[in-house]
Formats: sequence, C-alpha cells, structure tokens
Amino acid sequence: MSSNTIDRRTTKSAIYKVEAGQIIPVTDQLATEEPLEIQIRYGALQHRQRKSIAVTMRTPGNDAELAVGFLFTEGIITHSSEVIDIQVSNDESNHVIIDIHPDISLNINQLNRHFYTTSSCGVCGKSSIEAIKTNITFDLVAAPLRLDIQPFHTLPDTLRQAQATFTQTGGIHAAGLFDIEGNLVLIREDVGRHNALDKVIGTAFQQQLLPLNQHIILVSGRASFELVQKSLMAGISIMAAVSAPSSLAVQLAEEYDMTLIGFLRNERFNVYSGVHRITSP
Amino acid sequence: MSSNTIDRRTTKSAIYKVEAGQIIPVTDQLATEEPLEIQIRYGALQHRQRKSIAVTMRTPGNDAELAVGFLFTEGIITHSSEVIDIQVSNDESNHVIIDIHPDISLNINQLNRHFYTTSSCGVCGKSSIEAIKTNITFDLVAAPLRLDIQPFHTLPDTLRQAQATFTQTGGIHAAGLFDIEGNLVLIREDVGRHNALDKVIGTAFQQQLLPLNQHIILVSGRASFELVQKSLMAGISIMAAVSAPSSLAVQLAEEYDMTLIGFLRNERFNVYSGVHRITSP
Repeated sequence: MSSNTIDRRTTKSAIYKVEAGQIIPVTDQLATEEPLEIQIRYGALQHRQRKSIAVTMRTPGNDAELAVGFLFTEGIITHSSEVIDIQVSNDESNHVIIDIHPDISLNINQLNRHFYTTSSCGVCGKSSIEAIKTNITFDLVAAPLRLDIQPFHTLPDTLRQAQATFTQTGGIHAAGLFDIEGNLVLIREDVGRHNALDKVIGTAFQQQLLPLNQHIILVSGRASFELVQKSLMAGISIMAAVSAPSSLAVQLAEEYDMTLIGFLRNERFNVYSGVHRITSP
Repeated sequence: MSSNTIDRRTTKSAIYKVEAGQIIPVTDQLATEEPLEIQIRYGALQHRQRKSIAVTMRTPGNDAELAVGFLFTEGIITHSSEVIDIQVSNDESNHVIIDIHPDISLNINQLNRHFYTTSSCGVCGKSSIEAIKTNITFDLVAAPLRLDIQPFHTLPDTLRQAQATFTQTGGIHAAGLFDIEGNLVLIREDVGRHNALDKVIGTAFQQQLLPLNQHIILVSGRASFELVQKSLMAGISIMAAVSAPSSLAVQLAEEYDMTLIGFLRNERFNVYSGVHRITSP
C-alpha cells in the first residue's frame, strides 16, 4: 500500500482488482482507521491531573466531538459548560485532551471503569503495529500457499448457507474457516464480529490446529485492524472479507505479508496485500 | 418484547411490521446479545488468584471457545496445554472461568491492559440495564412525539447520499440526525459505528441541542445495546437502524419506552418497541 493521505478520512492504496479471471492493478480509497486516545485534565486549579480515559479505533475527523460525545454518553460529563477547553492533536499522535472545569468533581470510580480500548491497540503514542509485534509468533512466509482465483468465489455463499442464526434473525456476523479446496471447516456466529473470529480461533486452538497456514478465513463484514491482528496470531495467511477493509487492516496485513482480500462477492474481489498468493488460470 | 429463549442464540420477540402503510403485529427472532465476563484463575497451587480479564457483548454459545480464543489472540496464553479447566456458566450469570496451569507465569502487565469491556456494560453479575440506569437523565415520555410512516422511508437514501466517505471507500458506518420532517441535521461517518454516533451526539452536546427528543437518529448498520444506550443518554426517542437490532438493544429500548426501528429499507421497516409513536395514514 503506497499511502498518501490528503484528507485523513480516506487513504489511497495500490490494490489489485480480480474480475473475470484477470488480476488488474488499480488505485483505491480506503476508510482510514487510526487509534484515538481520549484524555481528560481535571481537578482543582492547584492540583490539575491528566488521565487517559479510553482508546478507540476511529476514522480521523471530528475528534473533539467524538471525545466529548464519548465522555457524555458514558456519563462522565453532563453539560457543555463542564468543558473549558479541547486540544486536538492534528498530527499522527492521535490524541485529544478535554479540559474539565475545575469546579466539577468527577466520579473517579466511573473513570476507572475499563472502556472500549480496543484489544490490540497498545499505547497510542507509539504505533499500534509496533505494539502488537511481540505477540505474533507464526511466520506466514515459512509455509507458502498459492491459490487459484476460482475457489474464492464460492466462499461467501457457502458461509451464508451455513449461518443458521443469520437465517433466523437477518442480523449477525460470522467467521468461517475454509480449507484450500474451499470446504468449510468451522463456522461461528456472533453479534460481535471479533467474537465470531475469536470463537473460530479458540476452537482451532483447543483442537491444536494452529498455525492455520493452509486455510482461508472469511469474515462476513468489514476487515478491521483488530480482525487482521487476531488472524495473524493464528497464523492465517489468507483472510477475506465480504466488505471493505480499513487502512490499518491493510497496513498490518502488508507488514506481515498476509494476503488480505475484500469485497468478495458477485464473482469478483479486491486484493489489498499479498497478491503473490493468488494465481490466475 | 415477550421473550422466550429456547436456543439462547436467538430471542423471540413480538414486533410490528410496517409495509404498504399498514402496521401489522408479527413474531420475530432476534440475535441474542448478552455480556460475557472472561475470568482467569492462575498462579501456583498455594496462591491461586482469580481475575476478571474482559467483558464482551456476545451471542451466547461457544463461550469456552470465545474465552480461550480471546486469551490466545490477545497474547495471554500461547498453547492449549496451558488451559487445565474451563467452567462455563450455563445460566444468565454469563461468565466463564479459564483455569491456567499453575506452572505458567502470566505477564501481569499484559493482563492489566484494558480490554474491550464495552463501554456501557457494568459488572456482569447484575443486569447490564441496571448498571446504566443511573446515568440516563432525560425522560422520553415527557416530550411526546408521534410520526407518520411516510417520512421514514426517505431517511436511508438521504443518509446514504450524504455519506461522502462511503462514496469513496464503500466501507464506513454513518449516524444521521434528522428532524421530524425527515431533513438531515447532522451526519458523521466512522469505521466504528459507536464512534459515528458519539460524533453526532458530541456535536449536538456542544451546540446545546440536547435532549434530542424532537429528532430521529438513523444508524447505517445494526442496532446494538451500546448504540441504544448512547441514544438514550442524548434523549433520543426514535432510533432507526438500516439492519437488525440485537435482543439487548430491544430490551433496553422497551425499558425506556424508546421507539426502536430496524430493517429500515425497501419501503418497509420493523418496529421493535414504542410503536405508539408511529401513526398510519
């Protein structure tokens, strides 16, 4: 991915479009995903304290509103007069500091509840990718895998037909583990897409099937940083999503030479990284 | 919602289908959403300790695999031999305890990182709904609002056409605030649907527009417990989603008499709670 961010909400990326048996290089726009650390400064003027409240994976833009909205919807602040200043980092340090009026005494227990803080994101000052590097142990390159285009097209229908709970409710995510012939090995459903993937990986972990380097994982929705990170932990070298990946998902996949596929539907798909694992007929 | 859970993955619910100007009572199946607390028991035999690691909003089923998968993908455990026992609560206490082999010394700093722990979920022993009650201050019933069916049908197209980043990337969530004539007042986009909603509410908060009891909020994806909770904080009495709501979203909406609409698309929608705010022509 050669990234070139002008408007930080989208990230330009060099990808491959796969259609009618052809693999064609094109330029694409990805929704940007980056961590934001929400901090507050609070307490009486003589004893101002600064505290990190949450880290959330977000698309840059309206960071002040996001932070204030988060503090309000979580019950930490109750009126706009309680906010006396907001400092938004306009660079890639990705943090926002909300200055709380010195007369407001905050409920510190409320503050100490654990918020979002999406799993894989380390300290926001350093790169999220650096923060998780120590944990990933399987080497994807060590177990080469190359696949033809054709088997990919059948995966979404196979997953969909195996989604028992989706059939009943019309609204639940799934993660499916496939072998290289496109046979479904495992499927799990959940309202949380990260949970569906954790259920698949947890099952494979208990059955001592890791690393899953001769398999494909398919997720029903979009591919986020978090889902790529979880797949890398399991040694998955080909991950596909029915919808779009985020910028950080692609960046992480590239870093580890994982093959990341998106928009896998209607007899076509995009390859965002690791195109060397895909062969045309 | 009269709920009757046999398979805990889905929840039966009495809803209203709105189609061709008619409001028709039907029975529907919702994807179940409930918190799961993941605990570990670890340390030498003489000094076993129990620790809560994370709370995640999940669909019941495969809880052991979910917990093990989570601990593995987060780098807390590395091999299945490290897990000596798993106790899953089969009732609504919604927790799982993973017993770690006494010889394994865990990285406690790793454990102390803040995980998921979705925002609004309190302690899992008590009801998630009870846990957030203290924070919700606006009374939806105090500001009556009744709307005809027709204006709802235009909302999804209006939102979609205003989604600048979606147009470029094909993959990003949106939250839109509409007035009662169906005019778009505010729209925000984000890779995280909770962030998109926090951005809208944060903007309204700063502009001192709360409570938003003469407005409709529309979210581009599914309606979770967390999104309903955030909307309730802002005093929103009508919330609509393009896709399905979860069981806990509906339960929370009912508790506060919020009108919750789902599957708002193709000139039809479902009303999951608060149907008294919808009038037929």
